[in-house]
Amino acid sequence: MSKKVLVLPGDGIGPEIVEQAVRVLDAVNASFDLGIEHESALVGGSAYDETGSPLPETTLDKAKAADSILLGAVGGPKWDGLDMSVRPEKGLLGLRSNLELFANLRPAILYPQLADASSLKPEIVAGLDILIVRELTGGIYFGQPRGIRTLENGEREGFNTYVYSESEIRRIAHSAFEAARQRGKRVCSIDKSNVLEVTVLWKEVMEEVAKEYPDVELSHMLVDNAAMQLVRAPKQFDVMVTGNMFGDILSDAAAMLTGSIGMLPSASLNSKGQGMYEPCHGSAPDIAGKGIANPLATILSVAMMLRYSLNAKDAADAIEAAVSNVLDQGLRTADIASEGSETVSTSQMGDAVLAAL
Amino acid sequence: MSKKVLVLPGDGIGPEIVEQAVRVLDAVNASFDLGIEHESALVGGSAYDETGSPLPETTLDKAKAADSILLGAVGGPKWDGLDMSVRPEKGLLGLRSNLELFANLRPAILYPQLADASSLKPEIVAGLDILIVRELTGGIYFGQPRGIRTLENGEREGFNTYVYSESEIRRIAHSAFEAARQRGKRVCSIDKSNVLEVTVLWKEVMEEVAKEYPDVELSHMLVDNAAMQLVRAPKQFDVMVTGNMFGDILSDAAAMLTGSIGMLPSASLNSKGQGMYEPCHGSAPDIAGKGIANPLATILSVAMMLRYSLNAKDAADAIEAAVSNVLDQGLRTADIASEGSETVSTSQMGDAVLAAL
Ligand SMILES: CC(C)[C@H](C(=O)O)[C@@H](O)C(=O)O
Ligand SMILES: CC(C)[C@H](C(=O)O)[C@@H](O)C(=O)O
Repeated sequence: MSKKVLVLPGDGIGPEIVEQAVRVLDAVNASFDLGIEHESALVGGSAYDETGSPLPETTLDKAKAADSILLGAVGGPKWDGLDMSVRPEKGLLGLRSNLELFANLRPAILYPQLADASSLKPEIVAGLDILIVRELTGGIYFGQPRGIRTLENGEREGFNTYVYSESEIRRIAHSAFEAARQRGKRVCSIDKSNVLEVTVLWKEVMEEVAKEYPDVELSHMLVDNAAMQLVRAPKQFDVMVTGNMFGDILSDAAAMLTGSIGMLPSASLNSKGQGMYEPCHGSAPDIAGKGIANPLATILSVAMMLRYSLNAKDAADAIEAAVSNVLDQGLRTADIASEGSETVSTSQMGDAVLAAL
Repeated sequence: MSKKVLVLPGDGIGPEIVEQAVRVLDAVNASFDLGIEHESALVGGSAYDETGSPLPETTLDKAKAADSILLGAVGGPKWDGLDMSVRPEKGLLGLRSNLELFANLRPAILYPQLADASSLKPEIVAGLDILIVRELTGGIYFGQPRGIRTLENGEREGFNTYVYSESEIRRIAHSAFEAARQRGKRVCSIDKSNVLEVTVLWKEVMEEVAKEYPDVELSHMLVDNAAMQLVRAPKQFDVMVTGNMFGDILSDAAAMLTGSIGMLPSASLNSKGQGMYEPCHGSAPDIAGKGIANPLATILSVAMMLRYSLNAKDAADAIEAAVSNVLDQGLRTADIASEGSETVSTSQMGDAVLAAL
């Protein structure tokens, strides 16, 4: 039975890095005989330019029919002036919500070969390995009512709604506890329960679900403290679980602790085992088209996809080993270059991973 | 004409650190002949314990009548089980909102003497001097509707409202631009305008107000990117302005970049020039009563108070110079101790500042 992968290059550096990742996918597909078929579709700004929509119906249909999705990145200043309803980001948010990809897994791992790249002292980040589990289809990103209205006194007011139901919290709690079981068996749930009622409920449901995982330890931390602790002593964390908005902020901070966000993949999963895989970094329009972007986060996203959605653990291991191997060889794209390393282009990095496979 | 200062020691280490700060206030009051009178009142958990309310009416009345307020800190695990309406934090939030202390100024400054304390590499943080201007009486902290309700299907749902009117945004924008004029003349406004409508309005009003400050440069950054940039290259910022929730998170992250949050004061101002001054750190219940807490952030809060609310710039300068002097002497409380420094207690640190004055 063949597996279908939908490839969505997107905007900015998306097409360049996805090209290399697809070469890697093709290689393991052949050598491990995985029976994967893939096709491409438009999403984001490039989809808007062609069709007037950042998420054309054909793309959504193909996404629903796929076993998994490989995404590059979306967005760029070119589309900044557009109405929010058709901005590139809406393509991404539409995929997340239509496919109910509620569980976003964002590992922040420091590769020993890249320890120097961090802005933090080596002893603070050496061996860093955190997993941020972010709720991705609820919270203030999707809450209603929302908008900008005119008040009686004539001035305008902007408003959004931060909302979570018990069942939404429960399912992301399960994702976090399951993930922790495969790792350090500790979950830290992040809230602002001293101010926000919605996170009081969040905390309560976390406690409730924790009872089903007696082997996993649950702790709680306020979001402001979590931001501090990530800077102060990030290695205290194993799995952090939080809502959509806090997760957006904290996962980016955590990724940046490594100094090599160009290395970090992510997965967004639904309850049917479908997943969308993408690098943690954005579309980097400033370097798009120059052939210097780092394709490794996207290549590692392929590995994550093979592991979580396509049941091909060996192929995933092989890709991860190949990436480690090229780092050992001293090959670096510009974003992670350091003294003594050899700076290579996007496609040269792809070549090197293929050679190491 | 005498100036009235209300002293609110609060909970945890609050009383200990405020005690030292009041000694310093008394000293400059005498030597600079400032005519300051002060009295104390209860707030937070200790107020709840005595009166059943975290913000007793007598405290609020005294606060309204005061020229400025010196606060220690509120909260602690002792009160964690209380209903949100009477938790210690409500005392703090009640003061902010009743006095309309909408402009929260949180400097993140790295003292050269404490450069080692940071978890970041010295070259990343040396000379760091950012000012975070956080809106403090609006946004999701105070937005209505809010609460936890039961849905028709029987499950519960928690909800909060993130809301800002144009006038609320406009006044905090003015605070940020005015502050930038006294500093590096650059304001970076933080939003999530690619997802949240309320921050689309925020960004628009920032642009509008910027026209009145042609000498100040305005830029915009998404909150997730801001969290990354603070970790990657914090010195790129001069003044950052943002809403209540993002400000809570980013100001704590920025403070922690210095590694010495025990050194950072803050001011919360209203449009009448009244201000509440407090350390950036919390009530640290784990070390309360041990006499080891760092009183310098509270002492520096007194300096900020003299400068911003009591028109006593010379006295403020004197306090800041005295603090710098004790650091030069190598005196450190435990939180900022390092090799070769002399570890002193809370009251010894107070003694040293008084001696240096
Ligand atoms: C592009 C944007 C809508 C998105 C988000 O905020 O979720 C991005 O920042 C991310 O984290 O994937
Ligand atoms: C204690 C709490 C309510 C408060 C806040 O969230 O504003 C604190 O974290 C702060 O930043 O002053």
